[in-house]
Amino acid sequence: MKVSTAPVTGMREFLPATYALRQYVKTTIEETYHQFGFHQVETPMMESIALLNSGQGGENQKMIFKVLKRGEKLDLTTPPKSEDDLVDYGMRFDLTLPLARFYANNRAQLPLPCKVIQMGYVWRAERPQKGRYRQLWQCDIDIIGAKAIAVEIELIYVTALALLKLGFQNFTVRINDRTILEKLVLACGFQPENTDQVLISLDKLDKIGLQGVEAELVSQAFSAGAIAALLETIAAFQAGKLTLATLSAAIPTIDKQVIDDLQSIIAAVVKLSGGHYNIAFDLSLVRGMGYYTGPIFEIATAGFSSSIAGGGRYDKMIGRFLNGQPVPACGFSIGFERIVYLLEEMNFQPPKAERKVAFMFNAKEDHDITALFTSAEQWRKEGWVVSVEIKQRNLKDQLDRLKAIGYTHFAVYNAGSALEPKPLL
Amino acid sequence: MKVSTAPVTGMREFLPATYALRQYVKTTIEETYHQFGFHQVETPMMESIALLNSGQGGENQKMIFKVLKRGEKLDLTTPPKSEDDLVDYGMRFDLTLPLARFYANNRAQLPLPCKVIQMGYVWRAERPQKGRYRQLWQCDIDIIGAKAIAVEIELIYVTALALLKLGFQNFTVRINDRTILEKLVLACGFQPENTDQVLISLDKLDKIGLQGVEAELVSQAFSAGAIAALLETIAAFQAGKLTLATLSAAIPTIDKQVIDDLQSIIAAVVKLSGGHYNIAFDLSLVRGMGYYTGPIFEIATAGFSSSIAGGGRYDKMIGRFLNGQPVPACGFSIGFERIVYLLEEMNFQPPKAERKVAFMFNAKEDHDITALFTSAEQWRKEGWVVSVEIKQRNLKDQLDRLKAIGYTHFAVYNAGSALEPKPLL
Repeated sequence: MKVSTAPVTGMREFLPATYALRQYVKTTIEETYHQFGFHQVETPMMESIALLNSGQGGENQKMIFKVLKRGEKLDLTTPPKSEDDLVDYGMRFDLTLPLARFYANNRAQLPLPCKVIQMGYVWRAERPQKGRYRQLWQCDIDIIGAKAIAVEIELIYVTALALLKLGFQNFTVRINDRTILEKLVLACGFQPENTDQVLISLDKLDKIGLQGVEAELVSQAFSAGAIAALLETIAAFQAGKLTLATLSAAIPTIDKQVIDDLQSIIAAVVKLSGGHYNIAFDLSLVRGMGYYTGPIFEIATAGFSSSIAGGGRYDKMIGRFLNGQPVPACGFSIGFERIVYLLEEMNFQPPKAERKVAFMFNAKEDHDITALFTSAEQWRKEGWVVSVEIKQRNLKDQLDRLKAIGYTHFAVYNAGSALEPKPLL
Repeated sequence: MKVSTAPVTGMREFLPATYALRQYVKTTIEETYHQFGFHQVETPMMESIALLNSGQGGENQKMIFKVLKRGEKLDLTTPPKSEDDLVDYGMRFDLTLPLARFYANNRAQLPLPCKVIQMGYVWRAERPQKGRYRQLWQCDIDIIGAKAIAVEIELIYVTALALLKLGFQNFTVRINDRTILEKLVLACGFQPENTDQVLISLDKLDKIGLQGVEAELVSQAFSAGAIAALLETIAAFQAGKLTLATLSAAIPTIDKQVIDDLQSIIAAVVKLSGGHYNIAFDLSLVRGMGYYTGPIFEIATAGFSSSIAGGGRYDKMIGRFLNGQPVPACGFSIGFERIVYLLEEMNFQPPKAERKVAFMFNAKEDHDITALFTSAEQWRKEGWVVSVEIKQRNLKDQLDRLKAIGYTHFAVYNAGSALEPKPLL
């Protein structure tokens, strides 16, 4: 056998220090959500390919890791017409679509409204590149079964609180509403059936700028007048000439209630923020997923081009599993991998109050192992982490490596005399 | 779209109460291991199909969920000769093989010996049946880089301690040694090349009894004399006529040191157990995996036919990734899904000291949401879990469902008056 010892492309493995940092971030987020009465639920990491292909995944749907059929189900005697003849399952690419299925399947046993936390891995067959991972952790909260701005306010408030606890400050919550975007596109003169395409181009504004958006729209042969109107409106917003307060006047087709609601959400979050972060209406915020139906929001932090959290209201997704019966829902997802990346860049160290001692013994000479283990247990009862360690020839190197993974003390076992932890310098 | 709302076959989803129980079991095991100085590491849930197919997986290797190649790598124009033309990755079926790869890949950065915890999902395409899951959680500890009985003793001691903390008692650690089994088979007169086959049959003793094992061996056309000798020896062991102390006399080819080591391990564990559990030599204990090279052990509990933990020494597996350079290793894995199943059967409730209050408000009438959120935050600072909940028409049903997921108190918000949690009866 000669097999590579590297992990597969685009997936990572974690040594103790990185694992501990990731665990700290997970626990901090989880505890914050827990204190607000969110409950954890869990779905399998594999879903049926029919579900994953059902058109709710946007760009992610093109990046599914598909699972080969097994046994008699897999027919290799006739050439497959397409990939889908070969597969029955796939790895989930987000936590929202499985949650919608889960809620439809279990709603009789869940509270209403239902406040859930979901944490787990998702997979996307991205082109391997720096900062893009093919197995990535997600932390989502969702409130299902309630259509009220209190939902949006709470989701933004608690997500921001989790980020504050992790040491992030002065970030900005950008907020918009999917229906405002739709009215904007129509008001500019685009055809209704082109709304999604136009928004996909507008979504790239942060990356390619106004000129880049213009070039994309021109290449799709949309009316020059519509393109000019859209770019003018966005430019006016960017210049501060168009605000949430003046939006009704500029685009009268926008529902007044939608603007009122955004204003109420912004006012509440400003009060709750205690000045530690900002919230602002952003007419150019699109969010990729087509399933959003109302307010959408994202959190941006200085010096990092991608958002560190994103979410919004999706009132129609769950209903697709329930013969169209409407089930309002809204969620917010923290970009866990980006958060961890930023914390590592800042050289952030999770707080550790622990005293960790390594009790070194000689495996060949010290035969009364039970006495050593019993002694170690006494120190554990005093709150120490105690590792019984077989002494190696190069004790200095061994202690250095133990120090590197967080050991603060050591003691060399000597049968008959008491163990006294000495600081590892 | 008409897609099933059920999870895929053999995989489960977890509602808040089940999730909380599973989390409690994970945390209890994790904290116990942590106190003993084990460190968590993590590998991707997908591995290359070449690694998974490399012959270290025993029966599990036949149950791999394989991942379809993507993009240009997948050629559907020519009929595939075998499944392996279509796939490049697969879901891991255990945590041991990925750990061996991980250690070979990262040993320069790890302490020596290296004490690791691994927790995570593995996948096996088992025939769906009660109690057999296709996505299952595993909790493993391994000590890599040390060949000394202190390793086996610590692994057994700390695993038993975790089980004690979860309320299991009077379980039995069964212990044997792979080399004893090999010498036994040869001493009975089987050919060396048939050792694995004979042991696979013997491994089924618990399920099919001595007669069943005999029938299997006869069907494989092994020598009648060898079969009779093996069955006699096992029967003698079961009748208490053959013990660890008399084994050397019965099978002189067994290395004396192996027996001494087992005796030392048993004596140490008996002392450390404090009488809360048992340990006994079991000549008929095989353990499925062919990679074991020394002591093997399992934990059995009354009234449950399968083991609840299993492990052993595998000194040759990691070396296969390092040009044969020997790296001793030993591990113990708790059967997490079985533990949870047994706790559910016992109607075990995780301890909860929490006060959880639901603050009910009327989304249509109560407009000062920030005052409510600010008030909720005060109660959180006092240690309460506080959920702000939108009041539904059927308040009684709503409160019943909140109680079912652990709420102890509620209060109905009334702008201007203070919130006073009342017990949920």
